[in-house]
Amino acid sequence: MRLLSSLLLSSSAFVGHHFRIILTLPLHFHNFPRSVSMDSSEGSLRNALSQKQSAVEAQGNAVRALKASGAAKPEIDAAIEALNALKLDKASIEKQLQAVVSGAGGDGGLNRESFRQAVVNTLERRLFYIPSFKIYRGVAGLYDYGPPGCAVKSNVLAFWRQHFVLEENMLEVDCPCVTPEVVLKASGHVDKFTDLMVKDEKTGTCYRADHLLKDYCNEKLQKDLSISAEKAAELKHVLAVLDDLSSEQLGAKIKEYGITAPDTKNPLSDPYPFNLMFQTSIGPSGLLPGYMRPETAQGIFVNFKDLYYYNGNKLPFAAAQIGQAFRNEISPRQGLLRVREFTLAEIEHFVDPEDKSHPKFADVSNLEFLMFPREEQMSGKSARKIQLGEAVAKGTVNNETLGYFIGRVYLFLTRLGIDKDRLRFRQHLANEMAHYAADCWDAEIECSYGWIECVGIADRSAYDLHAHSEKSGVPLVAHEKFAEPREVEKLVIAPVKKELGLAFKGSQKNVVEALEAMKEKEALEMKATLESNGEVEFYVCTLGKNVLIKKSMVAISKEKKKEHQRVFTPSVIEPSFGIGRIIYCLFEHSYYLRPSKAGDEQLNVFRFPPLVAPIKCTVFPLVQNQQYEQVAKVISKSLTVAGISHKIDITGTSIGKRYARTDELGVPFAITVDSASSVTIRERDSKFQIRVNVEEAASVVKDVTDGLRTWDDVWASFPHHVSASAED
Amino acid sequence: MRLLSSLLLSSSAFVGHHFRIILTLPLHFHNFPRSVSMDSSEGSLRNALSQKQSAVEAQGNAVRALKASGAAKPEIDAAIEALNALKLDKASIEKQLQAVVSGAGGDGGLNRESFRQAVVNTLERRLFYIPSFKIYRGVAGLYDYGPPGCAVKSNVLAFWRQHFVLEENMLEVDCPCVTPEVVLKASGHVDKFTDLMVKDEKTGTCYRADHLLKDYCNEKLQKDLSISAEKAAELKHVLAVLDDLSSEQLGAKIKEYGITAPDTKNPLSDPYPFNLMFQTSIGPSGLLPGYMRPETAQGIFVNFKDLYYYNGNKLPFAAAQIGQAFRNEISPRQGLLRVREFTLAEIEHFVDPEDKSHPKFADVSNLEFLMFPREEQMSGKSARKIQLGEAVAKGTVNNETLGYFIGRVYLFLTRLGIDKDRLRFRQHLANEMAHYAADCWDAEIECSYGWIECVGIADRSAYDLHAHSEKSGVPLVAHEKFAEPREVEKLVIAPVKKELGLAFKGSQKNVVEALEAMKEKEALEMKATLESNGEVEFYVCTLGKNVLIKKSMVAISKEKKKEHQRVFTPSVIEPSFGIGRIIYCLFEHSYYLRPSKAGDEQLNVFRFPPLVAPIKCTVFPLVQNQQYEQVAKVISKSLTVAGISHKIDITGTSIGKRYARTDELGVPFAITVDSASSVTIRERDSKFQIRVNVEEAASVVKDVTDGLRTWDDVWASFPHHVSASAED
Repeated sequence: MRLLSSLLLSSSAFVGHHFRIILTLPLHFHNFPRSVSMDSSEGSLRNALSQKQSAVEAQGNAVRALKASGAAKPEIDAAIEALNALKLDKASIEKQLQAVVSGAGGDGGLNRESFRQAVVNTLERRLFYIPSFKIYRGVAGLYDYGPPGCAVKSNVLAFWRQHFVLEENMLEVDCPCVTPEVVLKASGHVDKFTDLMVKDEKTGTCYRADHLLKDYCNEKLQKDLSISAEKAAELKHVLAVLDDLSSEQLGAKIKEYGITAPDTKNPLSDPYPFNLMFQTSIGPSGLLPGYMRPETAQGIFVNFKDLYYYNGNKLPFAAAQIGQAFRNEISPRQGLLRVREFTLAEIEHFVDPEDKSHPKFADVSNLEFLMFPREEQMSGKSARKIQLGEAVAKGTVNNETLGYFIGRVYLFLTRLGIDKDRLRFRQHLANEMAHYAADCWDAEIECSYGWIECVGIADRSAYDLHAHSEKSGVPLVAHEKFAEPREVEKLVIAPVKKELGLAFKGSQKNVVEALEAMKEKEALEMKATLESNGEVEFYVCTLGKNVLIKKSMVAISKEKKKEHQRVFTPSVIEPSFGIGRIIYCLFEHSYYLRPSKAGDEQLNVFRFPPLVAPIKCTVFPLVQNQQYEQVAKVISKSLTVAGISHKIDITGTSIGKRYARTDELGVPFAITVDSASSVTIRERDSKFQIRVNVEEAASVVKDVTDGLRTWDDVWASFPHHVSASAED
Repeated sequence: MRLLSSLLLSSSAFVGHHFRIILTLPLHFHNFPRSVSMDSSEGSLRNALSQKQSAVEAQGNAVRALKASGAAKPEIDAAIEALNALKLDKASIEKQLQAVVSGAGGDGGLNRESFRQAVVNTLERRLFYIPSFKIYRGVAGLYDYGPPGCAVKSNVLAFWRQHFVLEENMLEVDCPCVTPEVVLKASGHVDKFTDLMVKDEKTGTCYRADHLLKDYCNEKLQKDLSISAEKAAELKHVLAVLDDLSSEQLGAKIKEYGITAPDTKNPLSDPYPFNLMFQTSIGPSGLLPGYMRPETAQGIFVNFKDLYYYNGNKLPFAAAQIGQAFRNEISPRQGLLRVREFTLAEIEHFVDPEDKSHPKFADVSNLEFLMFPREEQMSGKSARKIQLGEAVAKGTVNNETLGYFIGRVYLFLTRLGIDKDRLRFRQHLANEMAHYAADCWDAEIECSYGWIECVGIADRSAYDLHAHSEKSGVPLVAHEKFAEPREVEKLVIAPVKKELGLAFKGSQKNVVEALEAMKEKEALEMKATLESNGEVEFYVCTLGKNVLIKKSMVAISKEKKKEHQRVFTPSVIEPSFGIGRIIYCLFEHSYYLRPSKAGDEQLNVFRFPPLVAPIKCTVFPLVQNQQYEQVAKVISKSLTVAGISHKIDITGTSIGKRYARTDELGVPFAITVDSASSVTIRERDSKFQIRVNVEEAASVVKDVTDGLRTWDDVWASFPHHVSASAED
């Protein structure tokens, strides 16, 4: 699932020392233990199949032998009957095995495919999204949001601002996409933000090396039932460790399996790394290389000093940014889930590493939802409902602040309309996290592509601020002023330069620096040795050799000092949201089919909550007539004033067809004008209708849309409208 | 003022046939007639100064001659006195001239400079914006919006959506920034979106050629008072025609004036064109060049077909897009006004070219504001107040739809807080517009940099849809179905290929195409000549010569046909908003200074309307005390629920200082908690305070912020609070 991981993990997963290792870890690594040991039924079925195959062959030989020896007919018939029985058994085992391997859990890969196709067809036909530059035959991995998609997106972002920025008083910033190289050099992206690529040796077409190997293994496992249980285990093992493979190992596997270019069957080059950033050049000189940012987080980190000042030099505080990010994927697939340009919404919550409590944790501690801790993954269990407060109390979740954001993310996603039963928080495995990270949880949403990482919530410790402090020379630190000065013991290493100069001449500087760089433990050991022996062997790495340090050359002591403040690099807790992925999953979770009234067709519906719905309300004159149209216009004007996005449909189409059209866009309410004084309001999912006065119509819709009243409440307060003919 | 024009004009000014000419026209061309003829006072002052200089010299010579000839002391004294009087006169004229040339209208360039410096200092100190990547010493032309700037920006965009997209039921789309070359080839940007650049021949540093020439002329005009009126007129002429100069002419002027590299005084290269788009490469092959879009409009044009379908195949309709655009400026200056990455908000209103009326024009026709029609500019007059309805009725504004958008833009800008007296709508001069444009008006806002183009409103006719139809082969057209079929006369040109083949052999194809391409008039003339003479000379441009066409070679006739629909390419009217420029001008228009209560300092205030203010309200406990802080938190919670962005300030700073801090961010309301039951609400600009119950505080602020009540209304409804001590 590296396939899905790079959109989102942003700085939470691909930055840092263990870059390559982190980059290449499978997102679905948690399936690993189960996968390698293999589902017991799958393993025994493969064994049974292979035994049955041998039995069929043996019995076939027996039949042929009987025939050749001219045996009696009854004897031959009996042998043939036995052969047929064996074949039937084999077919039955094949069928069972097929079900196991294709189902990814038994619910049927094919159903998922066709469900997805139905959703995507509706989405594309109604312009929720469109392949970009379609009239020029498009570009892989680039999509436009059409009118309803664009409205959903801006609703999601507005709610994100309300739920996070406003609620937490976050400092929102807006930085450019064009980023000079030095920034992304410091963050590690220039050197390490790569995928391994192979080229068709004849046509030059590029492929992601791990994708080809993965496709090969999956294809073999799903379509070739004749492979042995051992071979199947091997392929599954490859899938599990796929992203841990080095360039050389990947290349070797591709050779071993004889994998060729999918389109041409030509041989492939060895894998080599390809940087995923779009490169450009800033200014006219060609001397200032730049990149389109692969995440928005860096813009916040480089501004830490100013933001900390803006916040009155106080911790904790959070900064946030919504904006475009860019990744030049080698060969994008999976529609909106893996794209070359996408909207990220990122939060960097800066906190004192010695105090990660959160004052509002109590607000979320009683929430209970699907969590998937590290241990559960390793022991092959499934995600289970855990109370958030308990998870933090037991240390499953590292700290309160991380826990608080997990809870807030849960509320955010479910309020958007994500099904809570298809949402889980999965903890990164120890080797899946960057070395500096304290803990990391992904909000994963299940859709037709499997469990998709949509939000990453990571405690990244002080890594990013450190990296930029070092590269820029500007200290990105926080201060804690003590109410009263504190006495602290400090190690003081004082090299005696005169003595060192006499002894080491030109190498004096290297020795001085090495002495000053000693850690406390090492220094105290040297002090002890010098006091007992008068001299000590000391390794100076910049000289590559030991030197002899005498007692006169360095004074080591512990001194008491008064300190008035503590200076430290804050930790950062980073919730990072892949907005496009969340929206795509929301589309799938909101989609359903229901029969038309006549029962002759299945109609598409999106059950978006009003918060998300692209249009909140449609206004229909029941029949084409000037009076009704006038009323519709009056209502439309009130809706505009109330800030409710809506649409009038005055076509002569039947009211049933118009309802269907509006359901397919996920419009929650429809006002039908069937008199000059009162109208009906229909709720999309129940199809129930109430009758209200013309003057009230807009405000009722506004109240329900803004969440001031529920539909149930409205339903209880107004006369119900029952129509024999209006509904389709 | 090409300097300012390229950010914004987007497709409205730099696309098309007359590309270079359009690109290079001065934005302040309207000053041209005045400039070249020169302000009468400036011209006469320069003449007077030069005469006085001659008189001083002559009198000096006279004094020397008298001294040399040993004239009498009284005579010499009288001559010296006359000389001094002349020098005084000269100094006085110099002073007047200085005032005229530096004032750009008399209000003092220096005042503008220092005003701007005061605004910018406040903006940067309070993090409205920050030079991007500051810790790495920044990149010219890239800025971050810090928290208050980011909030202002998102308020402006939210209001834009409400005022345009929602109000007009526009189809909003969201397309990627990464754009394949073919799209920008079709639009003309790949070939023609350039500026002329010169290089320091030794260091390679790049400069915009027109900037250097412009700076030279301005410097000379403002600082060298000794130049003759003729020389001054020449320099002013150069400034006026600056952007009309070809690459060769620019180079010649730079040579003639001996202009060198500003930093090194090294010689400069000849000017050559530099494309302003950031280039990149899409995908790993390196074979698909792409650019970061220089405007958002193209994303709409390429989607026309789908959007037209989405709109029920009906015209008119408008599509809109908000997003980042990128221009790799050669050497950006002027802060937020000329940047390399910026937010555009663009509308493409598609309309039948035969009917550009607008049903809602009456809603804006009574508006009256500063307009600056073409004729007024040419005759050296100033902008004047014109009623919009009148401007359209008289044909000053080409059509109702264009007029409607001008009116809506006026309302949008003034509601944001743009001063209507420093806002004008300037019509493009005939040679300033693209050849295909029907009419074009810029909303210009006056700020310390002069009149800045912030919104372009252009009737671009069918140009863009044509260009993409042609390049992509996909017809981007609309249909008008006739209620009843119409009989139309159609010209039919039928070349007789057999005859033409015999006569022209290999050139047959060229001749056929030329015949078919004839316009109606030309074809009917040919028909007449053929009928009278039997043959006719016909110029075939692809052959570069005349050929002899005989009567047997072509049949030309007018035939009556029944048509069921009209197929046509819609016209597009494009309002295009430079969001960053609008925001910067808004900052300047909102800024003022007022003395502190003690009168010892000047305090900064931004008079943002609540709609725009980054934070709507601050909450202050009057003194640090648990009870007041508790009340503050309760109010804060209500404000959050009401969706009102706010900030609690519980520092022990004096209330006066806290008010000053909040005024500097433009926060319109401050709630001060000075009891457990009631609080005061202070309005920023009047500093008046009312007293309200704790429970009501949030809803009063919400009502005034949302525009449901005015402050005057609230002032009349609540008891007034008069405090001797609270205010600073």
